[in-house]
Amino acid sequence: MEPMQPCHKLWLEQDGKIVMSDYRVRLLELVAQTGSLSQAAQTMGLSYRRAWGKVKELEANLGIPLVASEAGGAGGGHTALTPQARQLVNAYRRFQARVAEAIQTAYDEELGVKA
Amino acid sequence: MEPMQPCHKLWLEQDGKIVMSDYRVRLLELVAQTGSLSQAAQTMGLSYRRAWGKVKELEANLGIPLVASEAGGAGGGHTALTPQARQLVNAYRRFQARVAEAIQTAYDEELGVKA
Repeated sequence: MEPMQPCHKLWLEQDGKIVMSDYRVRLLELVAQTGSLSQAAQTMGLSYRRAWGKVKELEANLGIPLVASEAGGAGGGHTALTPQARQLVNAYRRFQARVAEAIQTAYDEELGVKA
Repeated sequence: MEPMQPCHKLWLEQDGKIVMSDYRVRLLELVAQTGSLSQAAQTMGLSYRRAWGKVKELEANLGIPLVASEAGGAGGGHTALTPQARQLVNAYRRFQARVAEAIQTAYDEELGVKA
């Protein structure tokens, strides 16, 4: 039998609406990495329509623009994160990493097998 | 507009099965407080059958007994937590409290409004 392990889900709300989550931050990060909402959606196994809806919902809930698109030349269009979105993604990633570490430490000390 | 707030769910798994969660620890705690699975279920708005099923599922997943019942005299039966269950409930509650505090601290420092 394997040992127990701590599991968690993390998200942010504002006025009762989700304004960031592990899933949503990954979508935004993939947009930044690929320069394309379509490719980001594909990587996450989402339809373009659904990914677009998620981003627009987040923008509405947060009240800030998250992505900006340029109609492209030869290589097609390009979608980038806005400076506010980059800042939020980075801050959320730091928050996530700290929480994951704190959960593991608290688990080890309170519930882990004592050596 | 209200400020953002961090939200989370926390649970423990063993071999891919849930062996403790915020919801389950509350059920066990209510059994300890009321001495009755029936009263614990009622307080949580669960049917007795469902609460009993949850406890039996947890016992099976953990491989340890969590509750012990005595057929009662004048006052009816009494259900108590086993020593192992009391230990697990207490450890999980400490784990929970530490995680909640760590999440708030990490949120304030990474995402909170800077004064």
